[in-house]
Formats: sequence, structure tokens, C-alpha cells
Amino acid sequence: MEPGAGSLLVAAVAERIAGLGLVAQTTVGVHQTIVAALGDTAGRDELDAELAELPGVERVVRISRPYKLSSIEATMHEPTTLHIGGREIGPSTFCMIAGPCTVESREQTFAIAESVAAAGASMLRGGAFKPRTSPFAFQGLGREALEILSEARDMTGLPIVSELLDITQADLFRDHVDVIQIGARNMQNYTLLREIGQMGMPVVLKRGLSATIDELLQAADYLLRGTEQVILCERGIRTFETATRFTLDLSAIPALRQRTHLPVIVDPSHASGDRRLVGPLAAAAAAVGADGLLVEVHDDPTQAHCDGPQQLATADFGGFVERIAAHAGLAGRTLA
Amino acid sequence: MEPGAGSLLVAAVAERIAGLGLVAQTTVGVHQTIVAALGDTAGRDELDAELAELPGVERVVRISRPYKLSSIEATMHEPTTLHIGGREIGPSTFCMIAGPCTVESREQTFAIAESVAAAGASMLRGGAFKPRTSPFAFQGLGREALEILSEARDMTGLPIVSELLDITQADLFRDHVDVIQIGARNMQNYTLLREIGQMGMPVVLKRGLSATIDELLQAADYLLRGTEQVILCERGIRTFETATRFTLDLSAIPALRQRTHLPVIVDPSHASGDRRLVGPLAAAAAAVGADGLLVEVHDDPTQAHCDGPQQLATADFGGFVERIAAHAGLAGRTLA
Amino acid sequence: MEPGAGSLLVAAVAERIAGLGLVAQTTVGVHQTIVAALGDTAGRDELDAELAELPGVERVVRISRPYKLSSIEATMHEPTTLHIGGREIGPSTFCMIAGPCTVESREQTFAIAESVAAAGASMLRGGAFKPRTSPFAFQGLGREALEILSEARDMTGLPIVSELLDITQADLFRDHVDVIQIGARNMQNYTLLREIGQMGMPVVLKRGLSATIDELLQAADYLLRGTEQVILCERGIRTFETATRFTLDLSAIPALRQRTHLPVIVDPSHASGDRRLVGPLAAAAAAVGADGLLVEVHDDPTQAHCDGPQQLATADFGGFVERIAAHAGLAGRTLA
Amino acid sequence: MEPGAGSLLVAAVAERIAGLGLVAQTTVGVHQTIVAALGDTAGRDELDAELAELPGVERVVRISRPYKLSSIEATMHEPTTLHIGGREIGPSTFCMIAGPCTVESREQTFAIAESVAAAGASMLRGGAFKPRTSPFAFQGLGREALEILSEARDMTGLPIVSELLDITQADLFRDHVDVIQIGARNMQNYTLLREIGQMGMPVVLKRGLSATIDELLQAADYLLRGTEQVILCERGIRTFETATRFTLDLSAIPALRQRTHLPVIVDPSHASGDRRLVGPLAAAAAAVGADGLLVEVHDDPTQAHCDGPQQLATADFGGFVERIAAHAGLAGRTLA
Repeated sequence: MEPGAGSLLVAAVAERIAGLGLVAQTTVGVHQTIVAALGDTAGRDELDAELAELPGVERVVRISRPYKLSSIEATMHEPTTLHIGGREIGPSTFCMIAGPCTVESREQTFAIAESVAAAGASMLRGGAFKPRTSPFAFQGLGREALEILSEARDMTGLPIVSELLDITQADLFRDHVDVIQIGARNMQNYTLLREIGQMGMPVVLKRGLSATIDELLQAADYLLRGTEQVILCERGIRTFETATRFTLDLSAIPALRQRTHLPVIVDPSHASGDRRLVGPLAAAAAAVGADGLLVEVHDDPTQAHCDGPQQLATADFGGFVERIAAHAGLAGRTLA
Repeated sequence: MEPGAGSLLVAAVAERIAGLGLVAQTTVGVHQTIVAALGDTAGRDELDAELAELPGVERVVRISRPYKLSSIEATMHEPTTLHIGGREIGPSTFCMIAGPCTVESREQTFAIAESVAAAGASMLRGGAFKPRTSPFAFQGLGREALEILSEARDMTGLPIVSELLDITQADLFRDHVDVIQIGARNMQNYTLLREIGQMGMPVVLKRGLSATIDELLQAADYLLRGTEQVILCERGIRTFETATRFTLDLSAIPALRQRTHLPVIVDPSHASGDRRLVGPLAAAAAAVGADGLLVEVHDDPTQAHCDGPQQLATADFGGFVERIAAHAGLAGRTLA
Repeated sequence: MEPGAGSLLVAAVAERIAGLGLVAQTTVGVHQTIVAALGDTAGRDELDAELAELPGVERVVRISRPYKLSSIEATMHEPTTLHIGGREIGPSTFCMIAGPCTVESREQTFAIAESVAAAGASMLRGGAFKPRTSPFAFQGLGREALEILSEARDMTGLPIVSELLDITQADLFRDHVDVIQIGARNMQNYTLLREIGQMGMPVVLKRGLSATIDELLQAADYLLRGTEQVILCERGIRTFETATRFTLDLSAIPALRQRTHLPVIVDPSHASGDRRLVGPLAAAAAAVGADGLLVEVHDDPTQAHCDGPQQLATADFGGFVERIAAHAGLAGRTLA
Repeated sequence: MEPGAGSLLVAAVAERIAGLGLVAQTTVGVHQTIVAALGDTAGRDELDAELAELPGVERVVRISRPYKLSSIEATMHEPTTLHIGGREIGPSTFCMIAGPCTVESREQTFAIAESVAAAGASMLRGGAFKPRTSPFAFQGLGREALEILSEARDMTGLPIVSELLDITQADLFRDHVDVIQIGARNMQNYTLLREIGQMGMPVVLKRGLSATIDELLQAADYLLRGTEQVILCERGIRTFETATRFTLDLSAIPALRQRTHLPVIVDPSHASGDRRLVGPLAAAAAAVGADGLLVEVHDDPTQAHCDGPQQLATADFGGFVERIAAHAGLAGRTLA
């Protein structure tokens, strides 16, 4: 829409789109308002002219990519900046999300939360419901963990990020969590994507172990039908190499930048499975242009309930943040 | 348990296991009854002797693999034979599951159903709810499709196989379907696995695009906590090769045979994405020792709503079945 | 060229091609003679008409694929049949190449050779110069091994297949070997390909661990500039799955059939690294339409110098050949 | 050996090793001298004590990894620093190797060489003999290209890096080149590795498209039997992702650091195949701890004979070097 086009004009365009048998979806940004016309428009070339003539319409752009709402054309090449719990995620900041793999106790969580807050973290992550490869492995503290995280937010002011596995827990997450994480193994669980999108909350969507960049963006489209606040997360892909648990695909960051307006962060902890690699890979993520990190920190990794070998110690986290911030700073970014 | 150990003895063993802080799970087979003791038993070597002394206990076996209920040790190396809707799936049969990628109409479905039944198919497959990479693609006819499939079963006597995406549709599937299919993209959707297992129905579990054989068997463990009727399905993995849509991993069939008692079938249609490859790959699946096939058949593939290029034509299906049955016959298998 | 076009007409066409700044390569087959015009012909559409008018020219076909001489258009869709040491390799036979991973001694080699010959093998394979991942591993008996293989041929009448690593050994191979094998790790060693092609002998070219089908056919083009007798060999590709050493890509057989006129065989021994999988995979290779097998057989695999776990025992080889021949027989093939 | 152990003592140790049926290989470094005992020492535990007692021996260390000479234990965890043509490659520098994919003409090469020298490059790279997937593609200017590079060295003082494909060209490379490059497709061409190692010159060894880190180090062992000056190069691996030409495996840099004393550089040009990704990936390589880059630069990439889309323009190279140097500088490295 043209700058200054009022809500009546926007509504009229949306109505006309519906009248043409398509679905209209309106996104109101700071600099621009966009009305997407979703549906099968192949061969209907006359639509462009028809919509272009409506009052208030600045331009009509066709998106021929397999993904639509997440494509960079959907915002006319303007990167999206999100504001979550007082933190800004976007092209001029670096968002440091840190915390334990899984919430183990009130004391442990508070200790870690205060530690990472003092070191400059932007948000607190912590697992409550854990997706485990085997049904016989520890599955997380559940509701109790979310309540602990909620208290930790009150103490530190850090917004909370936690993974949702089952939509029946939606209310619990609405009450206690600021950002819903969708795990790699659920990236193509379309039922869950649709339902989480409908919650209208900020979401971190992790790339599936063998998902292409195109598939990641199509999965984001499921979410974007309900929420505008989607953050993508590269966390390593499956390859033949076994020296690291997964292969962190840092090329995906600039490749995504060419294709999408959404922020992209990196999880070096799950990618490598080895804390000695987390520092170098986190620095590389900052240098390659990521908008932030999702990193596991534990007060005593050797005693962690899960994924101990990949968690940073809180004692080392301050120096870690400094080094990463220096790399991010070279591109003009400051910690969110 | 010893042959002839009555249900009272079995119950007593289960109770003792519970008394030791473990979870007992009882499987009653034709030749043997097995009581699994699930939980953290590392370092508790005294348990073996304690359980071995209980009346009716024949042997105590520790399963050190990451998967338990699906492991071949869980049945003392006896392959499982399933009976579903009058069809036998196991080591002496070859189960030919055929039908359209997606149910498009009543007429189309009936025509295909009669065609594949006449050609010797064992079950009818058909998509009702389709998992689609993009939210803007055709998502299937839903409930109506299941009702049509149900009618097709009445006409042909073929049990019905269809994919369940959302547990809120459980009742619908209980009413209309004989075997629930879990798609590759949901293989590690543990919430769904647990819920479908609880339905107690037969399940076809497809291997994830980048799931290892070990992960497939651990996913089966989720199901096996609720149902004993699980069929595994190899359908191609993600590799660097782009000449075929996926790389069908036929080595997985004998590799699974060494590790699990569960039946294993093969889906050559999704693996290749090209009907010209379906015949050769189906013959290879029969020769490599698979227990059956899941294959897409359409009356007019050029007009199919989805995946047209990979669907066999009904006109070619009779000859196809003959060729496959000949290969399966060399190993003493007859069509289920 | 038209059937009946004499060598003078063929030579005239080749000369005209050279006159146009291209390289001419003539292939004289049983049913047809083909003159390839190699070079940059993009944008020179007038060439087709010019060549089509020459006396004796039947048709001019442009091959737009990245591979040329190996493409199925290069022989007008006629599959190539090779005759090597009295054995026929092509669409109506199944070529069983068997023998030890590496030649260890005269006695062992003779024993295995007589065993596999009696069981119906078509050719004898044996390693003389071994490509080893580590420079500190056993590298083969070298020249002595080739002399032993040569004697084994005299005893059994089986043509000999062995791998050449270094072109300085060309004379040795010319004297003692019937088919030169190029290993997977040398598939893109273009210097070696060119030099081996120039030897004009039959060649088995193994697919590289991460080579696409297109790259395999382009590698074959290097050989085909010097020899017409090229056999392709699928031997497993690198994927994330670690349950088998490599992932045997049997889809490649029908995919190659659509693209090339060259015979294709399968090596199930290196692909799986486990003799228990060799039988099933060999049967699958026969069923999927391969033209033969390259399989490792040893008189006492537990004592083998290398790759013991994947070698079949000579005692089991007779039954193995029978089972494979039955699957190949269903497609009308007899043992070569 | 102990610091100060003279050459006589070293020679005596080597002789004793030979007397024990093993191969001795001596490496004289700045801080230490090491004598490797190569051969099958499994089960010969008495060797350790026997060698430890020889005069001048400080310690005896067993290396149980599959690679030996390249393992970090081989230098007692001291990283190797190389000096090539006045440039230092090692832990305190960052080695920027830049130049055209292929040498096209004298003028072009001189222009690029002066440009990259002015911008701060450490060495000049240029292709003379090109390994091409198809035999019908441009194969490089050959000898003429090497002579041009040699002249460019005289003009700029930059050492020359170029790929050797065929050992018959060894003399040509000795005359004109400072560092021999071994391409990814030849990483497991063991004949070539052995021969190039014997030349005793500095070598850049590129990782194969599907080579594991362990295999790369075993390939380096082939070279290290002849030369001590080996640089490893990560250049992208084959995965399922097609948005980039290969997947640059930056995790390999810290993973290699844990395993080897050899310097490791990164080639972001071939990995991505897209110059827009080269800048971000080069920054990431510097941040992750690489010892340098191998990057393609052309005066007019749109007109390049090969790989145009991935080559940086000389006009952009100065800014590129500044940004990369800033990231490398955060870890205390200066341009070599």
C-alpha cells in the first residue's frame, strides 16, 4: 500500500482480494503495510492490473518462490525487526539467548539465570518438555519447569524461550513463556505449526535435520498465517561427517538473507555436541551475519541431566559473550 | 515366561517388576509371553537373578541396545507376524498395499480399489489428510475421503491404510481405517507417536528422511508401549543425489532384520518420484527380503491432484503385481 | 550413418567435422556406425543441416546432456553389449565377477578361482595394488599378484579383473589382466581416466563415494574417448546412515538405464561391509536390472588380509549364485 | 628427543627403530625433534620401555589414532608454523591466498596479481591445469600459465599456489610454483599423494567432497612421509542442500585443531559457488580460527573462463581484506 493509505483503503483491498476467490492477509509494519493475496493465481495475469488500480495500492508484486509470506519480496526487501519483552531482534542487534538444556531445579535455574543476565544475555532459554529419541529417557520437569522459568524472568527481566511439544499445553506457555521454540524434529509437523501460529506469539523455528532452506521457509509460512513474529534457527544438518554431532550449515545464514526478511539465529550447542567447539562456532555465526545465538549454559555441565558435554559453564560465559560481541560489533551490531 | 506359565504367574512377575521401581510391559504372543522391565537398570545386576527366580520365568535377557521393545532380543529372535483384516503380514507373506496418493472422488477411489483388488492387492491405501510442504497446497478431502475409503473396503474387502496427522481425528480413523500411517515427517513427533500408540491399532511407521535405523527403532518403541502391531516402512532418505527424489535405502531391510522382530515394507513411489523406477525398485524390495510394499496407483496418473509422475496406472498394475510376486516367491512368500 | 554406408563415406564425414573446427570420434557397432562431433556447437544451428546433407548420413542428433559419448542418445537408445574373454556383458546376460579382496598367495588364489569357476562365475577379480586410506596399511602383493591371477586364468578360463592405481604399471596390466578396474576414489582422477582410456582395454569404472550419476557419466566420457568397452559399477554412496558402511544406491541402476547405453554392475560387498547383507543386496541388484555383480569371495574370510567381514565364503558361493541367477532369470537373463 | 640431543643420538634412535623391524621418520622442529616409529606395533608393549631407555630420548608416546604423522600427538600438541617464500603460516598469522580461478592471459594475471598484492594478499593462486568434470570443457593454459604465474611472482613478490594433476609435470612445478595444490577430487589419489610428498615442497591438500576428517588426516600422512610442509584446506562437503554448491563445514576447523598440528585454511569460493556468500563465509572462517583463506579474485568476473559467479572482483577485494583482517585480528592474528 502507499505510505499514508488509511485502514479503510487497506480493508477495501482485502475485501476485493476475497471477492476474487483468494485469501487476503494484511501485515502492518513500521514503514509499510502489505496485503498478501494467497491462492492459485497461475494464469490469472489480469489480477495484477485489477489490484494495481485500487485506491491506495502502490505496487503489485508476484512471488513465484515456493514460499510466500516469508519471502523477501513479501516485505519489499526490508528485513523484519521484532520487539520481544523489551529486546530488539533484527539487523542492528545481536540476540544472545542462553540457559540450561533442561530445567533441573529452582536453585540451579535461578543461579544460571542470574549468571547469564549479568554476562549480558538477551533472553533465557530452558527445556521443560523434552523431545527424546527414546521413550525411556528423561522427558523434562514439565509444568513445574515453566513456573520456575517464569520466576526467573521476574528476577532477571530476561524473556523466556522454551520448546512446546503438544498443543494441549498452549495455555501453560501463554502464561509462562515469551517465545515458543519449535524443535528441529517438529519443523514439518504441520498440525503443530498451524496451531502454534494461531497462538499469535513470537516463535523460534528450528531447521529440521535434513530440511532444505526452501522447506524451512515454507514451514515458516505455516506460522506466518497466524503470527508475524517468527525467528529462524540454524542448528546443524545431517551429513556423513561423524566428528561433530551435526554439520552446522553457516552458509545457510547468507543464503537465507537473500531469500527472507525474517531474523536468523544459530544454535552451536546442538550442532556440535561439544563445548570446545561452541566458542569458535558462535564467533563464526556472529561473523557470518546471524542475528543471534541460542546457546546452552549450565552451572556444572559435568552433572547435567542431559547434553552435559555441549553446555558451556557459567564461569566461562562472560568471556564467551565478550568475544562474540566483538565479532558482532564489527558489523555494527550491539547485544540485544 | 516358560511355555504354559498362566496369567497369574505373568501378573505376579509384572507386579514384582513394579515393586522394584520399574515399569512392566507384557506381550502375549503365539509362541511365547514376554514381560519387559523398563527403566534405569544400569548397575543393578542383582535384578537379573531376582527375577530369574520367580515362578514361571524361563529366562532374563538384558537389552543393551538404545531401542528395547522393538529389538530382536525382545522376542528372542522370533519375527512378529501380524493379522490385520484377514491379511497376514510376516515372514511367509508379501503384503501389497496399493492405492491413490490422495482420495480425489468416490468414483475414482472405487475404480482404483476394484482394480487393485482384482490384481491381487492386500490392502488399499489412500490419502485423506495430506501433509504438504506449503500451507497453500491442496491438503486432501479429509473426513469425506475417509468415508469413501470405508465404502471401498466394504466393496472390495481390502483393509484401509491412511495417514493420521492430528490426534483430534482419532475417532474418525477408528471408525474408517484399519491401519494408521505415520508419515516420514512425523517419525520423531513423539507426542503423536505416544497418542497413536495408545489407540491400540495397527500402525505403519515411515522412516524419517534423515533418520538412522536406530532412531527408527526408538520411534517404534514409543508406539509399542501402546500397541503390538507396528510395521516399519523404508521410503528413501535424503542424500546428495538429485537424479531421484530420495535415495531408497534397501540395505536397511536386511540391516533391520538383524535388529528387530517387526515387519518391514518399502515405499518405492515416494522414494523415486518417478513411475519408471517403481517397477525395478519394487522388484528389488521383494528380492532383498521386504515383507511388502506401499505403492501408489491411479487410474489416470497424468490427471492426479498430487504426485502424478510417481503413480502407477491401474492398467499396468496387474503385470506389476505378477512380476513382484515372482521375486517374492523365490523366497517362499505368497501375496498376503 | 545409414546402414551400409562404407568406410569411405564415414571417413568423409569425420573429415568434414574436423574441417568445421570440431573433433570427430567414430564408433563402429554391430547395428550402426556413429560419428560424434565434439566441441562447442552452441549457437551453430547451421551445422545440423550441413552435416545432414553429407552422403551416408542418416540422422544428426544433438546431445544436450553434460555427458555425450556415454549418453543413451549416442547409440540411438541401443544398449551396448560387450564381449570380453568369451563372456558377453549386456541386456541378456548377468555377469558374475567374483574373487578375493586381495591376492594373498598362489594356493589361496587358485583354490578360490576353481571354486568360483565351478559355481558359475563369469570372471575372476583380485586385488594386486590396493588403495588404502592409511599409508601404513597393507598395500597388496603388486606384480606377483598379477602373475598369480594370470595363471588362475589359464587354469579356469575366467577373464581377470584387477584395479590399476598408477599408469606406470600399464604394461603389467596389459600382460596379465582382461578388465582394468578404476576404484571409487579415482573416479575423478582425470589424468588416470585419460591414460587408461588410451590403453583401449575393457574398464570397470566404479562410482565415487559422493559422485552424482551425471558426474559418473562424464567420467565415463573421459574413458570413451579411448575405449568403447566401459562398464559402470555402483558400489554405495556416502550418507548419514552408519549401520551399513555405505548406502547402496540401487535406484541408480534404472536411473542410469534411462541415461546411458553402458552396462551397469553392482558391488554389494564394499557397499555393505557385512557379508550377511551381501546375499540380499545381490538379489536386489539382480531384480532391479543390473547387468552383473562384483562380489568378494574368500576361502577363509576370518583369516583374510583385508575386508574379511564382507567376503563371502567359497563354501557358500554355490548357493549364492543359484539364488541370484534365479532373480536374474525372471528378467530373461542367463549367467555370462 | 630431549632438547639438545644431537644428531648422532637422533640417528642412533632411528637406527634402533629400524632394527626393531619398524620404519623411522625424523622431524626436526624449532622446539623439538621427533622420531616416529611406523609399523605394526600392536601387542609389542615392550617397545616403549626399550626405546625410552635410549640416550637422548625424552618420552615415548603411542598414537592410537588412524592417522599418525599428522596427529597432534606427533608434535606433543605444538601447532606447526610454516615459512614459505617469506610468509609465515601458523597460529599467529592469517594467510590470504588470492587470485583467478584460471590463468587466462598475461595481462589479466598481472593486473589481478598487482591488485591483490596491493590489497594485502599473502600469496597468489592461479589455475594452470584444470580438473574438469567433462573432458570437453576448457582444461587450462598449462605450461604457459605456470610461466605467467612465475613472472607475476617476480613482479609482486607473492609466492605462487597452483594445482598439480599429473606427476609428469613435477619439474615444471618445481621451477615455477611455491606451493603445490592437491584438489578435492585427488585427495584419495594415493599414487599422486605419495609422489607429490616425495617432491619435498609445500602442499595445500584440499578435503575431498565426501571425505571425513579422519580420512583427510590419513591422506596428509601420505604427504608427510616426504614433506613436512602440509596445509589442509576445507572447501565444502556434499550434502542434500542445493541452495549452495557445497556445504562449507566450518566445524571442521576446531575439530581439526583438536586432532592435528597442521595449519588449516578455508576456500569459501568453491564451497558456495556464489560471490555474495564469499564475504560472510570468509569472515566466519577467520572467526572460527582458520589459519587463512584460498579465495578466487578476477578483474572482470562476468567474463571469466570458468567459475565466474563465485569470483570476487578486484575492485571489491581491498574492502574484503580489511573486513576479514578485522575478524582475524580479534584472535591476535595479523595478515601473513
